[in-house]
Amino acid sequence: MALLIQKFGGTSVGSVERIHAVADLIERTARDGHQLVVVLSAMSGETDRLLRLAREVCDVPDERELDMLLSSGERVTISLMAMTLRERGILAQSFTGRQVGIVTNNSHTKARISRVAADRVKVALSDGVIPIVAGFQGINESSDVTTLGRGGSDLTAVALAAALKADRCVIYTDVDGVYTADPNVVPNARRLSVLSYEEMLELASLGAKVLQARSVEFAARHHVPLEVKSSFIEGQGTLVTQEHADMEKVLVSGVAGDLNQAKLTVVGVPDSPGIAAQVFGAVAAEGLNVDMIIQNISQDALTDISFTVPRAELTQALTIVKKVAAMINAREVEVKEDIAKVSLVGVGMRSHSGIAARMFQALSREGINIMMISTSEIKVSCVVEEKYLELSLRSLHNEFELDKDPTTPQ
Amino acid sequence: MALLIQKFGGTSVGSVERIHAVADLIERTARDGHQLVVVLSAMSGETDRLLRLAREVCDVPDERELDMLLSSGERVTISLMAMTLRERGILAQSFTGRQVGIVTNNSHTKARISRVAADRVKVALSDGVIPIVAGFQGINESSDVTTLGRGGSDLTAVALAAALKADRCVIYTDVDGVYTADPNVVPNARRLSVLSYEEMLELASLGAKVLQARSVEFAARHHVPLEVKSSFIEGQGTLVTQEHADMEKVLVSGVAGDLNQAKLTVVGVPDSPGIAAQVFGAVAAEGLNVDMIIQNISQDALTDISFTVPRAELTQALTIVKKVAAMINAREVEVKEDIAKVSLVGVGMRSHSGIAARMFQALSREGINIMMISTSEIKVSCVVEEKYLELSLRSLHNEFELDKDPTTPQ
Repeated sequence: MALLIQKFGGTSVGSVERIHAVADLIERTARDGHQLVVVLSAMSGETDRLLRLAREVCDVPDERELDMLLSSGERVTISLMAMTLRERGILAQSFTGRQVGIVTNNSHTKARISRVAADRVKVALSDGVIPIVAGFQGINESSDVTTLGRGGSDLTAVALAAALKADRCVIYTDVDGVYTADPNVVPNARRLSVLSYEEMLELASLGAKVLQARSVEFAARHHVPLEVKSSFIEGQGTLVTQEHADMEKVLVSGVAGDLNQAKLTVVGVPDSPGIAAQVFGAVAAEGLNVDMIIQNISQDALTDISFTVPRAELTQALTIVKKVAAMINAREVEVKEDIAKVSLVGVGMRSHSGIAARMFQALSREGINIMMISTSEIKVSCVVEEKYLELSLRSLHNEFELDKDPTTPQ
Repeated sequence: MALLIQKFGGTSVGSVERIHAVADLIERTARDGHQLVVVLSAMSGETDRLLRLAREVCDVPDERELDMLLSSGERVTISLMAMTLRERGILAQSFTGRQVGIVTNNSHTKARISRVAADRVKVALSDGVIPIVAGFQGINESSDVTTLGRGGSDLTAVALAAALKADRCVIYTDVDGVYTADPNVVPNARRLSVLSYEEMLELASLGAKVLQARSVEFAARHHVPLEVKSSFIEGQGTLVTQEHADMEKVLVSGVAGDLNQAKLTVVGVPDSPGIAAQVFGAVAAEGLNVDMIIQNISQDALTDISFTVPRAELTQALTIVKKVAAMINAREVEVKEDIAKVSLVGVGMRSHSGIAARMFQALSREGINIMMISTSEIKVSCVVEEKYLELSLRSLHNEFELDKDPTTPQ
């Protein structure tokens, strides 16, 4: 008998039929003899409906009031699910974020969890009752309702799993796991059966929308085994867990593409100490997120500094950088928006060299020019022309034979 | 400067336009220098929508879960109202039933208020913030959400008024007050400017739907002046308050009709002690509500016992009464459903005799036969044929000249 946390997103509980389908799944898990805690999001579309109402009554809704408004959505799904299960003769009881003691800081609409009491959940479990918990919401120290921001229900599930030392936290969603690449781009992409937190984090921050980075970080910090599964079709999902020796046999776990970057180049910068600090100090002071940074080899005492920022922040970044460029007597500032970042991720890279070189060769064979390169322990990223994104992903997927499961003998 | 409680029902906050109209009203009251606490219901239709969802997922929804579900409705209106007011530069803050400390017993879906802490409301008021409070809901001692049943938001408003010793509790609704008769039946019915709690209670229990009896009782017990007003049109409403000398000058305040009764007659009952106790003991044991009781004058040691029950309880009552009738050797049990109860209400009756006689004469002049009569200190009720209901109400309204305001000199 294991203690499981099962989290279902908005599309999984988006209609009466879906609620019954999820109730079936919960019932099966309970009948299998597991203890379980269920975490639910609001019905898909409900949050949008509430936000629309807010925008209809005012231009800039107060954030405390927005949290009060949005927190109504999960009450509907948790109570409907609890009454559905009870009518089937399964003891279940709904609990709000407050009732399970999800205490957060005071940052309305994007609160951070400060502690999870989970007292009532523990009592329910020991009474043989399945707690049906509202995701996404908590209360601050003044007992006001807060919400956890995007992906907040995943976070609730992981935080409860950590507090209860659950054996596994299963995130049910509308896809059946994490893939070696986006299946829309790479048709022979393969579902990964297991993945390390670090790999998942790299993939999450690269735009794989399955799990929010925050939830993965939380799971990693508290060693919560996290599983991503489909609530629509039965079968295996992807387990995200601590890195272990076997994982290193897999050189590359997946490839990911990111179209959300734009490149800025400060051209003709005097190559003297402190210049880079001046540029990035100014950018950081504005709270902008710089991703990759490249400084070209200096020629005749002048150098170029290139870096990428999220496209949404480009205009703001450009204003600052132009100001700094003038101050440091740089020649000009160039902007390139139609770029894509292509990344290889895998814990195996730690112990195997040559991955980056193979990546560059594979891209080169396709005639794809690499504009920027950055590497971390378990990731190599290249910036290429936006039009080469799909080609890059497919050629890398082939190069590293990601369609073949390396853990099963061929 | 007065402290006012303003309560708005579902139709008053049923749309974005209505929310703005109510915000106007709140703004005016605040600008006039009053302190105020606002109590809101869910948007009209929302409770029905949620109940429909509940019925779609299960046949008999668990009551604790039903309360969790329904309590989401007021969160939407209070947060929308608070953000609307804040954007106008008026300090307002939403509070749930829990947050204002409405503590109830554990009777889910029809909980009774056991105490009102109102701490956060008091703090808000002293900070110059207008508290926007969710009506209809509270929490029990286990910190679970409860709801107060029909008319629950009125009760929240009155309970807060009592706890805060407010100067007045204003119930805004879709009618502009309490009338001398149902204006749909009696076209020259007149809005009453003032009424005692006792009169309001008699009128409320007789089917005048403006205020629930529970709220009036609560207001009477705590001496809360209660005003019924329209949130759609400006103007005076009806003040419900403690009886005072002036009120006695008004013989009759209003007439009311009730079609919700059915009459049962146990015919040919042996006229011996304890028989009535046997009949009504059995009926009471089933939790049925008996309203009027008549025992005819005994002839040849046999008597008839007639009484009325709500029509919804007729079948149940008949089963019991037939059983008892057999036991006590009564001849038969007769049922009459097409009856109506017509009542005159007024505190003036306490000091003036002859009201009942005038009532009987007025009905008799119209050729209306009176089947049953009951009287209380401030009420006379007659049961007549259902078809005579409207005629009875109109003739009594004329007889006592209720269209003329007795408090203003003619």
